[in-house]
Amino acid sequence: MTFAPPTRRPSSEKLSPAHEHSLVPVGMATILPAAAGYLRQLESDLLTSFHRYGYDEIILPTFEYFDVLAPGLEPALLEQSYKIVDRTTGRILLLRPDVTAQIARTVAMGMLGTRMPLRLSYRATVFRYEPEHAGRDRELFQVGAELIGADDPSADCEIIMLMIESLRQIGLPSFKISLGHVGFFKGLLVRAGLSPEGRKRAEQAAARKDFPWLGEILSHERVGKRSAQAILEALELCGKADVLAKGRVLARGEQQLLRSLDRLATVYDLLGAMGLQDDVLLDLGEFREFEYYDGIVFDVFTDGIGIELGGGGRYDRLIGRFGRDIPSTGFALNVDRVFRGLNLVHPPKTRTSTILVVGPVTRTKEILSVAQQLRQTGARVIQRAVTASARDLVTVAAEAGLDADVPTTIVIGSGTIHHGHVTVLQHRGHDRHGKPAAPPHTKAMSLRDLLTSLSSNHEGVA
Amino acid sequence: MTFAPPTRRPSSEKLSPAHEHSLVPVGMATILPAAAGYLRQLESDLLTSFHRYGYDEIILPTFEYFDVLAPGLEPALLEQSYKIVDRTTGRILLLRPDVTAQIARTVAMGMLGTRMPLRLSYRATVFRYEPEHAGRDRELFQVGAELIGADDPSADCEIIMLMIESLRQIGLPSFKISLGHVGFFKGLLVRAGLSPEGRKRAEQAAARKDFPWLGEILSHERVGKRSAQAILEALELCGKADVLAKGRVLARGEQQLLRSLDRLATVYDLLGAMGLQDDVLLDLGEFREFEYYDGIVFDVFTDGIGIELGGGGRYDRLIGRFGRDIPSTGFALNVDRVFRGLNLVHPPKTRTSTILVVGPVTRTKEILSVAQQLRQTGARVIQRAVTASARDLVTVAAEAGLDADVPTTIVIGSGTIHHGHVTVLQHRGHDRHGKPAAPPHTKAMSLRDLLTSLSSNHEGVA
Repeated sequence: MTFAPPTRRPSSEKLSPAHEHSLVPVGMATILPAAAGYLRQLESDLLTSFHRYGYDEIILPTFEYFDVLAPGLEPALLEQSYKIVDRTTGRILLLRPDVTAQIARTVAMGMLGTRMPLRLSYRATVFRYEPEHAGRDRELFQVGAELIGADDPSADCEIIMLMIESLRQIGLPSFKISLGHVGFFKGLLVRAGLSPEGRKRAEQAAARKDFPWLGEILSHERVGKRSAQAILEALELCGKADVLAKGRVLARGEQQLLRSLDRLATVYDLLGAMGLQDDVLLDLGEFREFEYYDGIVFDVFTDGIGIELGGGGRYDRLIGRFGRDIPSTGFALNVDRVFRGLNLVHPPKTRTSTILVVGPVTRTKEILSVAQQLRQTGARVIQRAVTASARDLVTVAAEAGLDADVPTTIVIGSGTIHHGHVTVLQHRGHDRHGKPAAPPHTKAMSLRDLLTSLSSNHEGVA
Repeated sequence: MTFAPPTRRPSSEKLSPAHEHSLVPVGMATILPAAAGYLRQLESDLLTSFHRYGYDEIILPTFEYFDVLAPGLEPALLEQSYKIVDRTTGRILLLRPDVTAQIARTVAMGMLGTRMPLRLSYRATVFRYEPEHAGRDRELFQVGAELIGADDPSADCEIIMLMIESLRQIGLPSFKISLGHVGFFKGLLVRAGLSPEGRKRAEQAAARKDFPWLGEILSHERVGKRSAQAILEALELCGKADVLAKGRVLARGEQQLLRSLDRLATVYDLLGAMGLQDDVLLDLGEFREFEYYDGIVFDVFTDGIGIELGGGGRYDRLIGRFGRDIPSTGFALNVDRVFRGLNLVHPPKTRTSTILVVGPVTRTKEILSVAQQLRQTGARVIQRAVTASARDLVTVAAEAGLDADVPTTIVIGSGTIHHGHVTVLQHRGHDRHGKPAAPPHTKAMSLRDLLTSLSSNHEGVA
């Protein structure tokens, strides 16, 4: 199964960078209200889902000292990071380009105690210089989870299950997990006798599934034909359980390669037992962007988005770079991409409709008071004081209601009604020329009846 | 009424900067899980409260171009900002030191359309170099609301009501709004004939209520005795409605001063009509940190926190600096300080309790499956595969439960129970030496009965 690149870029109400080129920095988009509300809901739902699995949120600083965080990140990512000289200390500050390395640093410092395993979650912005693209590519919204201090296959399985369950919870309709083990491909490269730099470049080529480049590297490193063929073949081994059997052939009895395949088989089997086999594809060429991964790794894709929504894997030796090794696994999701994935299928659900309370300026206190009483029923209410005669008031209020694009306007102080009563206007929307489709449906109501009707129905006036 | 500085710094589970001096940048704290969860809940509750008043969240970029945002900010704040040279354009980037100026820039660019008034809310981190303090003073979590395109007193009243209602919603037990109008004090300075720089410095002295410094400035500017006395007296005028009468005496018939007092009286009266008079203190010397405020201004304080929790006011000419004037008002709350204010009274409520599922490694699939079924009832569940004989399993599971500090452990595969049954351990906590207070209460239960009991009670096993 393949995932086609998106045929159209779905609207998430972001402005195109061309429109704002010179006023807003490249790669930093504004997210307008409707989309922003939905995106925050998404973040919150994902964190709630993580919480149900025992993962608690931690908030980490946006800045790190470069020298402190550097051991956790490869040079290419440090190169892509935003840096500032700290005015107070003269040391170089880094705007965090990655949260996992930060969490590793925090755990190694002992800030989270010694009780293991730790289950941590986060929502955070990470910052990276990226080549100029549309959207918010330099300021990435991520949510993630880390399972720290657990090295058995059930931990790998737990973190993948958590990702799958969370994506289901938020209603992502279809997605696939690409599951691999970095040890297998790395082991092939070692066995083939590549130089350390050659291995590094070959891994980069593999991460991008760039076969011609990989072929060139292997040839330049004078790798024998049979070994080269095994490496190129491994990169294409993607599918169901038969991939493992083919991998075993390529392993040719090499213990380290077989151990990677065994671990992969165990995790795949556990996921299958949980009924998740259909969601998972094995991929022996699976590689993650970060070189700190050293075991089971995975990415998640959905139809219509040509790039992974997120992913993660095992990093048993990352925390050790800041102190003592603690076997760990985790994942991160790119919230923008998940949002786009959802948006392709169903648009953001409409939020609570709004009631407008309108009255003459001279009765401002009553406007504020009625609005406040309506809010206490759970309604979302805005208010407006207008300058109008008692005779014109309903007409002016009807215009204000159309202008504010609300379904219901409550008018206070219209000349024709009794004390303690209000006029309720039910708007009928606009026609295709943007004019009111019809005059609003109008009725007088006592304030008490209105409040009673709202208390039983938060979505509008019954 | 005065607000005493805090006698002790309440624990919000932040680490002291001394502990992490050389590893984490100054003014950037880590917020550990219990506190982080509560702080996120607080943010979300505040935004929900704003939503009920018709305010919709917007997400703005973390970076701005210095030259674009500079017209909205005074030089002192620009000086305090974190700056980076943009690798792509060579222009200077600013990490936002303030959100209101960003929103003004965004509105002026027409990104939010032309329909007014606009009601916007945000949750955002702002960054400022501050003198070295404890806690998170350089990376501030703010939530705020802006009412854009409304210039009548009911708009001033709405934004203050919103702040008060929101603080009540989240359970802040007592607080006071300090309400003023910058036009009054500024008008006194103009009438006294101060030079522009003298006025600027006098305003700074007033904002800090620094009487000796203000006295020096007035003397240096050769302000007449009567005018100087009026200015110093105004700075002390703080209290209930009589403050307005005293202000009128100081105004000596000057129209601009009287207009400021009239506006202040109208807003104070509206707030009183809404039953909020007890929450508000008039303060004719009230000044905000930002010089873009040009009308009604306010701060909110609570007992035990020696600094304002937040505040705001009217900025009718700020958006104009980026284009066309649009009369507006708004406020921001410092989430950390609000959190501290709440924490003084009642500690964070405990969150859903956790269930631990334990079994032998050989039955990992069953562990995962039972944990998943428990989660489907709404429970928060963690899981652990252990190496233990059937005989020792319950003992090992009891230790794991105490170690994970959960009230309930479910044991799978204990030798003495029937198929389809689990062992439920109810832990009885630790004694004051950290040892188990008593062996856990133990019973066998069918998995089906356990699931049924949980479905009707999410907080634990009945």
